[in-house]
Amino acid sequence: MFKTEVTRRLNIEYPIILGGMVWICMHELCAAVSEAGGLGVLAGGSMTADELKGEIESVREKTKKPFGINIPLLRPDAEDLIDISIEGGAAAVITSAGNPKRFTKKIKDAGLVVLHVSPNVTLAKKAEDAGVDIIVAEGFEAGGHNGFDEIGTMALIPQVVDNVSIPVVAAGGIADSRGFAAAFALGAGGVQMGTRFVATHEARAHKNFKDAILGVTDTGTIVTARTLGPTRCIKNPLAEKILAAEKGGAGVEELYELIGEGRSRKAAVDGDIVEGTVYCGQIGGLISELKSVKTVIDDIIKNSRKTFNLDP
Amino acid sequence: MFKTEVTRRLNIEYPIILGGMVWICMHELCAAVSEAGGLGVLAGGSMTADELKGEIESVREKTKKPFGINIPLLRPDAEDLIDISIEGGAAAVITSAGNPKRFTKKIKDAGLVVLHVSPNVTLAKKAEDAGVDIIVAEGFEAGGHNGFDEIGTMALIPQVVDNVSIPVVAAGGIADSRGFAAAFALGAGGVQMGTRFVATHEARAHKNFKDAILGVTDTGTIVTARTLGPTRCIKNPLAEKILAAEKGGAGVEELYELIGEGRSRKAAVDGDIVEGTVYCGQIGGLISELKSVKTVIDDIIKNSRKTFNLDP
Repeated sequence: MFKTEVTRRLNIEYPIILGGMVWICMHELCAAVSEAGGLGVLAGGSMTADELKGEIESVREKTKKPFGINIPLLRPDAEDLIDISIEGGAAAVITSAGNPKRFTKKIKDAGLVVLHVSPNVTLAKKAEDAGVDIIVAEGFEAGGHNGFDEIGTMALIPQVVDNVSIPVVAAGGIADSRGFAAAFALGAGGVQMGTRFVATHEARAHKNFKDAILGVTDTGTIVTARTLGPTRCIKNPLAEKILAAEKGGAGVEELYELIGEGRSRKAAVDGDIVEGTVYCGQIGGLISELKSVKTVIDDIIKNSRKTFNLDP
Repeated sequence: MFKTEVTRRLNIEYPIILGGMVWICMHELCAAVSEAGGLGVLAGGSMTADELKGEIESVREKTKKPFGINIPLLRPDAEDLIDISIEGGAAAVITSAGNPKRFTKKIKDAGLVVLHVSPNVTLAKKAEDAGVDIIVAEGFEAGGHNGFDEIGTMALIPQVVDNVSIPVVAAGGIADSRGFAAAFALGAGGVQMGTRFVATHEARAHKNFKDAILGVTDTGTIVTARTLGPTRCIKNPLAEKILAAEKGGAGVEELYELIGEGRSRKAAVDGDIVEGTVYCGQIGGLISELKSVKTVIDDIIKNSRKTFNLDP
């Protein structure tokens, strides 16, 4: 059961993919997800080329199973990261934030599977045209960087599924067996989860960051930087400051000081959850317990058959 | 199959509820949904007390099956509408936009079932405490009036389900058997659909309005009036005008001229889809065909078993 085109193409046991989260998807978390039967992912977005090389080596020391690298295509050195991923023996590259035409052929020619993150139908179709193997359709519920169109996962997945012929992985709003089963009902062949995997022992996130996710409620996240690049995070003092600046008509420079890359590092690495950006999806309110990665995945697989509460 | 606490409490065949849409949920649509096995609903929000009385009579001429009345509690004459619903023999009242404590006991004492629309966990719990029978948890994907918290259906449903002990109906982003099955996977005991039922022969909406829904894409809706009262509608010239006014810091009066009640009437009744507000959910992009209400419901029931594409 749960063998889909996604598990076949990626050669993994369960169709569960780790969302590429900067500072957090380091080798421990990546290897743990792969070892547990999913697709572990390293977040290339917060690593230098050398760091990525080192992290790949560390993953390979911990697991023989397939893993992937997330690479935001807006990185000036995106091609270097791709070369390192290929040479390092990654099974897949997950590209986002850029034109999938640029490197898809190169990655595929090297024998890797290409996944591309798309927040709407048009971009999903473009990715398919570019030769991408699998679409990760990410809804507005997701933490971190988010599409401009604000399409919820429930509405997004069936519309993407109807418009592409390659497999679709659902992302945004999924943290347990119910979300997993719902994704399949909507026509997806797998899920990508981020926030749920932050609240694990293996995630390289500061304790304060994990505690913030364990404590958040359904209304506790917000989207900032709607015009520059929407980002879902916990409604903390920094987020309020960003919203106030946006409302007050702050310029791009002023905003970049508040939303720059250093802000996510400050929260995830330094544990400053007041002045740092705590990326978190809307499903954070469902997550109340720190678990091991294996328990997260095993629970989903075990419980997902029971979730249809017909005649409960 | 598909017998849930929702079907039992409402005494209906299928757990499918018509969303209360002003100007559109008149007796033809209401009676058709009830006749097809769901819960038809009259939109009290756009009717005078006398009109509601007449519409209830017309429903009862067309069907002997249970039907409900949607009543926004902010209406100054909400209690009159409730009295008319009780005297008219409605099976249920769906309340929204106001404190469920006010009339729940009165409605239940008269033998009717009370449903309350909630966009987040806190309000759902308050509704349960007020004695409401069923929560309609409505996600950000939904057309028309929308919660301030922007919680997507995928993230909202399991969190509400975990926090109340009464049945939960999922709303927002549902238009076919896939959304129906996903709602059950998430723990709901039924669905409420609006936009899908607008695109039916029986809906009392102008042809231009129906055509607009048939033509919309996944990115074609937008939320206006985020500060006054978020409303999801099709991105038309009026919506652009509202967004520009909001961005330009327009005052409340200026905004009310653009978003007032007359604007939805203009679109739904007069067919002015340029200067009127065309309420539409994000799932509009999935809807490409005008159907009869019976076909919509029969298709959902027939296909919802096939939707799990495990090992496709």
